[in-house]
Amino acid sequence: MRESNDIITVLGVIGTDPEAKVTSNGVPLIKFRMASTQRKFDKETNSWADGNTNWYTVSAFRGLARNAIASLHRGDPVVVTGRLHLRAWNTGERQGTSADLEADVIGLDLQWGTANFQRTMRAQP
Amino acid sequence: MRESNDIITVLGVIGTDPEAKVTSNGVPLIKFRMASTQRKFDKETNSWADGNTNWYTVSAFRGLARNAIASLHRGDPVVVTGRLHLRAWNTGERQGTSADLEADVIGLDLQWGTANFQRTMRAQP
Amino acid sequence: MRESNDIITVLGVIGTDPEAKVTSNGVPLIKFRMASTQRKFDKETNSWADGNTNWYTVSAFRGLARNAIASLHRGDPVVVTGRLHLRAWNTGERQGTSADLEADVIGLDLQWGTANFQRTMRAQP
Amino acid sequence: MRESNDIITVLGVIGTDPEAKVTSNGVPLIKFRMASTQRKFDKETNSWADGNTNWYTVSAFRGLARNAIASLHRGDPVVVTGRLHLRAWNTGERQGTSADLEADVIGLDLQWGTANFQRTMRAQP
Repeated sequence: MRESNDIITVLGVIGTDPEAKVTSNGVPLIKFRMASTQRKFDKETNSWADGNTNWYTVSAFRGLARNAIASLHRGDPVVVTGRLHLRAWNTGERQGTSADLEADVIGLDLQWGTANFQRTMRAQP
Repeated sequence: MRESNDIITVLGVIGTDPEAKVTSNGVPLIKFRMASTQRKFDKETNSWADGNTNWYTVSAFRGLARNAIASLHRGDPVVVTGRLHLRAWNTGERQGTSADLEADVIGLDLQWGTANFQRTMRAQP
Repeated sequence: MRESNDIITVLGVIGTDPEAKVTSNGVPLIKFRMASTQRKFDKETNSWADGNTNWYTVSAFRGLARNAIASLHRGDPVVVTGRLHLRAWNTGERQGTSADLEADVIGLDLQWGTANFQRTMRAQP
Repeated sequence: MRESNDIITVLGVIGTDPEAKVTSNGVPLIKFRMASTQRKFDKETNSWADGNTNWYTVSAFRGLARNAIASLHRGDPVVVTGRLHLRAWNTGERQGTSADLEADVIGLDLQWGTANFQRTMRAQP
């Protein structure tokens, strides 16, 4: 598969308490919901207005998961880059589509505040 | 709003006959559904396997719409870059989420075939 | 390496006659120079003005190269996504940096004209 | 100009002490050099090897600059998304090209360590 396909960068806010999990293979995993509220420039009023909010279910694995679990809280602004998976679900009574984002990158977004970094890993994988 | 937010590049195949429309303001508009089938490398079998298919509703406006209407057909492979809008819908009986992609860029994807370009516009806007 | 690193999408114009080559392993290769002229919105004059022009050396391989060779000409507008390599060079007399872009995706950009697609490949790799 | 043009996401390490500046209009500005070392998978040896290092000159303005100045140090890993400007320079004796990246987003990259966020701004602009 070509590397660029379905890759999205989202600037959002963590909307749920991040969950720390372990896969059946023993791999650390983090999961949280993230909201990205879009803003639209209204040419008629010459001002910005709130637009649609996109909700994503973000997951990350291994070292990135471990560091994210130690760092992130509900309400924190993050930049997430990853591959988007749109999945249809159907419970019988209800159906819908969820937008899952498998994060390749999670960063604390310095647009909205400050942070101090503590290195836990040396080598570049 | 920051420019990078919710921008996605999708390599997909046009899954419906493109519709040519005009907005209430007289702006040309194209709409089509696009499928992006993901491929996963399975480390155990050392081979690629089909993964999830993402479906997007793509729209574009103005000159890009005009050229796309004259160029694109169901089954054509395209590269689309644009802003993703995840929208909840509810008809009373059914509900779901649609993934709308307002295209900033539509290109004919030369991975899968050839194409000859005919310029219709001169200046860079 | 993480997939997202140094990935760039460029909307540009092919500035040289594309060269068709074959690597020492017999792999088809296309090379061309591409110019991307940026535009800046000047808030004082309320209008767009020409900005900097970025020049990239684009290369692609295998099936994408074959189709691109059959399709592309100097002056054609393209959308290219790929990994950027900034390389320092030094001839003794002169030195500089070249921006090489190994294309994962090359599309004919429908912003500026029309094109008709002819499929040459069936399966999704 | 179309929003997607020349937008790049770079995962890099800050290679110089960040400089805090103020523009002639009184706008806060941060500048630093960032190195992004690429890794290549060698199919013959079935292992990863170091590849090329890209060097970028990153700048950011206003609130993002203020928070970045309070947060970032040489050696910190960051994810930066922004527009790339390749500029030719010539001092008479030497010439070259610099890769300038005007950051729309700077995040502390949680792949390599942990960080705790302190919010300084409320509203989404």
